[in-house]
Amino acid sequence: MNILRLSTRREEQQMSVKRVKSLLFYEAAGTPSGRIVRTLIERGPLSAREIGLSTGLAKSTVSTALHELRLASMVIDRRPANGRSHGVGRPATVVSLNPQAGTCVGLLIGAEHMQLIVADVSHAVLSDRTLHLGTDYSVAEAPGRAAEMLEQAYAELHLSRDTLLGVGIAVGGPVNPLDGRVLRPGGMPNWAGVDIRAMFEPVLQQAVFADNESNCSAIAEMTWGAAVGQEDFVFFTVDLGVGGAIVSHGRVVTGIAGGAGEFGHISIDPAGELCRCGNRGCLELHASLRRPLELASRRLDRPVDTEELIALALAGDVGCQRLLTDTAEAAGRGLAMVGSAINPGLVVLGGRAALAGELFMAPLEAAYDRHTLVKRSDVAPEAATRFVASRFSRNSACMGAVGMVLRHYGRRC
Amino acid sequence: MNILRLSTRREEQQMSVKRVKSLLFYEAAGTPSGRIVRTLIERGPLSAREIGLSTGLAKSTVSTALHELRLASMVIDRRPANGRSHGVGRPATVVSLNPQAGTCVGLLIGAEHMQLIVADVSHAVLSDRTLHLGTDYSVAEAPGRAAEMLEQAYAELHLSRDTLLGVGIAVGGPVNPLDGRVLRPGGMPNWAGVDIRAMFEPVLQQAVFADNESNCSAIAEMTWGAAVGQEDFVFFTVDLGVGGAIVSHGRVVTGIAGGAGEFGHISIDPAGELCRCGNRGCLELHASLRRPLELASRRLDRPVDTEELIALALAGDVGCQRLLTDTAEAAGRGLAMVGSAINPGLVVLGGRAALAGELFMAPLEAAYDRHTLVKRSDVAPEAATRFVASRFSRNSACMGAVGMVLRHYGRRC
Repeated sequence: MNILRLSTRREEQQMSVKRVKSLLFYEAAGTPSGRIVRTLIERGPLSAREIGLSTGLAKSTVSTALHELRLASMVIDRRPANGRSHGVGRPATVVSLNPQAGTCVGLLIGAEHMQLIVADVSHAVLSDRTLHLGTDYSVAEAPGRAAEMLEQAYAELHLSRDTLLGVGIAVGGPVNPLDGRVLRPGGMPNWAGVDIRAMFEPVLQQAVFADNESNCSAIAEMTWGAAVGQEDFVFFTVDLGVGGAIVSHGRVVTGIAGGAGEFGHISIDPAGELCRCGNRGCLELHASLRRPLELASRRLDRPVDTEELIALALAGDVGCQRLLTDTAEAAGRGLAMVGSAINPGLVVLGGRAALAGELFMAPLEAAYDRHTLVKRSDVAPEAATRFVASRFSRNSACMGAVGMVLRHYGRRC
Repeated sequence: MNILRLSTRREEQQMSVKRVKSLLFYEAAGTPSGRIVRTLIERGPLSAREIGLSTGLAKSTVSTALHELRLASMVIDRRPANGRSHGVGRPATVVSLNPQAGTCVGLLIGAEHMQLIVADVSHAVLSDRTLHLGTDYSVAEAPGRAAEMLEQAYAELHLSRDTLLGVGIAVGGPVNPLDGRVLRPGGMPNWAGVDIRAMFEPVLQQAVFADNESNCSAIAEMTWGAAVGQEDFVFFTVDLGVGGAIVSHGRVVTGIAGGAGEFGHISIDPAGELCRCGNRGCLELHASLRRPLELASRRLDRPVDTEELIALALAGDVGCQRLLTDTAEAAGRGLAMVGSAINPGLVVLGGRAALAGELFMAPLEAAYDRHTLVKRSDVAPEAATRFVASRFSRNSACMGAVGMVLRHYGRRC
């Protein structure tokens, strides 16, 4: 990206950090500058025209406010990334927040690792690191390890911790929005009942926002991925587990206790096999990649992991293809239940199953259409449910944790 | 209701109708008077304090605007209905729109009948009539018959048609929000593909709003019923069919093609019996009152209808009780799937099954809790899913069609 102008002096940086924080935390949400800063923090670089459309401000108001924000080193002009230019003319300049005006951190708490991403308010990723901890790391040590990771990242970037606007934390279980506690986690039973914010805020000394992995992944798709500009969609993941999120009116639906979007635990057979969640016959037992991996490993008489299973199928192994398409069919049948309840306009498929491309997507879509109420043939193309693959195959939850902080401030307008 | 002051002179009535229409259609949404009128039209009679809370206007602004609106005969003061007074003191006066300032019509299109309700902007029902047409009435004759019903109602009420703000129409199938057409109706196949608005607007000469029965019923619950003040809930009906609606952020979720909330057509057994919708093994086949009625009729060797089945069960007939509790269990198991996807804070049970009270509600709730992901025992009481019976057992869709018009204007602020 070609940055046209960028103030680098230390005092200017500190000025603009202070100014961003004051616009975000203290000033009237309604001022044109405040609205523009919040829009840019949520949506990333935009043209003046897009800022007008998004904020509803008049062209002249946007222009005056941008002039002031430029003088204060709050925003900078950039040439747009490729693909933003239309036609043959000179591409329109986009405006972004000054990258030095603030940073956000995303932290993913995995069963065996933690991942930490630092991004700035212009939406650029500055650092991405992973710490492997092993299965037996204790919940109590997590905040301290996270603080170390954060300190290292900021030291390497030569960035002041004062630039930090907040830390978003993604965890592998539903987070109750009423009390901030992790609820019935699947893969990480140690974390059940933990109040993430109360545990991490005193150690990190930062505003902490917490949500579950799938909800964070949906935020990543809305902010940078396959669902930019979409106010209503379903995010559906198929990996070693099955999960998802529902976005309605531009916000992730949490449910009263944080349990919304737990599509993998829709019980499709009340007399079926026992699930890790304590119910029977959950969709996850039929539609995750766990069983195909077991069967592929047995067939090849050696351990096969997800990446290899998909690579073998894409290379033409008919057995591995069948294992994936059977899973896609079961997943589509389960998603069809969600379809009859929600009738989404867009489904974003996440998780590593999406890496198989059409091999997985085509039977998923066909099974969805076969078993849901509103079928493709019932409606005009614009009223049919569209399916797209996630843009993030691996990084989505941690990027979404960054996005959660950005959106938190953006949504205040 | 004790109306303290009410102008009845013809010219005053015409003035205030004009003024309401101008506030609703033409004036800046942001004026205090406009915001107050829209709040009253959506929510019905409120105290000055409640108006302040709902609009966010300062006490003095509300007071000045109400004074002007009183002078213009736009609003009137009333003593509140019973139950609105708190403690021993004199109950606070509530303000309502002048009933003469505007009327709304709700029209329900049934398989064999049409129902028409006239209400005024103060939320009082002025007229409620039903026209039986028989199963073979043609779609083409419906608008004309509706116009006759409307004309008769206004003539009997000695009301000018100029007071009419709009007609809400409830139909027994999903209505596509993109093109206004009825989609795959279950009980009324004749109506498939009909553009309700295009068909009724030229005949009724009024603004027409259309949605399906269950969505309208959810609006009735939000406006007058069991979900007043609730921004997020699931409405679930069990009657001869099974259906429902999802309300998120205070709005009914339509889905991309109008198919959201079709809980009865969640296919729970892909190899099951054929459903009227063309899928197999839909929830409706297991959880509607149709099969219990057949079994009760066979058992008693004469036709038994819904009301009698419920009356027999409530009177202690153990067979009829079992038919209802088995249905409640199947319905709860199906609703548990919706629960794992949405985790609602509130479920409003509608349809005539709700008339059986705890006999139906208790096994429904127990089956829901058994099969959904987040269980009552997992969370604090305030994070558990609450179940309440609908306030309307019969009239809900037609009342909701009235509410749809009121909310249409209310929501503009």
